[in-house]
Amino acid sequence: MQYSARIYITLRPSVLDPAGVAVESGLHQLGYQEVAGVRIGKYIELKLNSDSETTAKEQISQMCEQLLANTVIENYNFELIPLS
Amino acid sequence: MQYSARIYITLRPSVLDPAGVAVESGLHQLGYQEVAGVRIGKYIELKLNSDSETTAKEQISQMCEQLLANTVIENYNFELIPLS
Repeated sequence: MQYSARIYITLRPSVLDPAGVAVESGLHQLGYQEVAGVRIGKYIELKLNSDSETTAKEQISQMCEQLLANTVIENYNFELIPLS
Repeated sequence: MQYSARIYITLRPSVLDPAGVAVESGLHQLGYQEVAGVRIGKYIELKLNSDSETTAKEQISQMCEQLLANTVIENYNFELIPLS
């Protein structure tokens, strides 16, 4: 069965995010004073063939641990959508 | 009222994604042969004070158009979550 996975990788809350600070400052300069707490992460989409949803979830967790996320400083989350 | 916004910025389907291709090749080398169509985008979280949900949505669309996304090559989507 084929699945579409949406993976969200975010910096852990205790880790500084200089890019987020820069974007927040840019938004303030454009006049969006009401914005706060900007954090920038990664969004990865992929397609996966797998026997079952459980296997697919395990595979994606492993991919995140091994390659996609740096678990020392990042958290990950994902959604799995069956395609067909 | 305060809202939390989750913004997803993705490359348009017609635009090449060399980083996605590299990650896909890395996953194949790690043994995940069943993965295809890897695309890498950005995930931005921010907090926003706004009078109404409609205003908040308009503001976020404007921020995406003006600063967060490059609409020539990228699409954006967002979710708004009321926080109190």
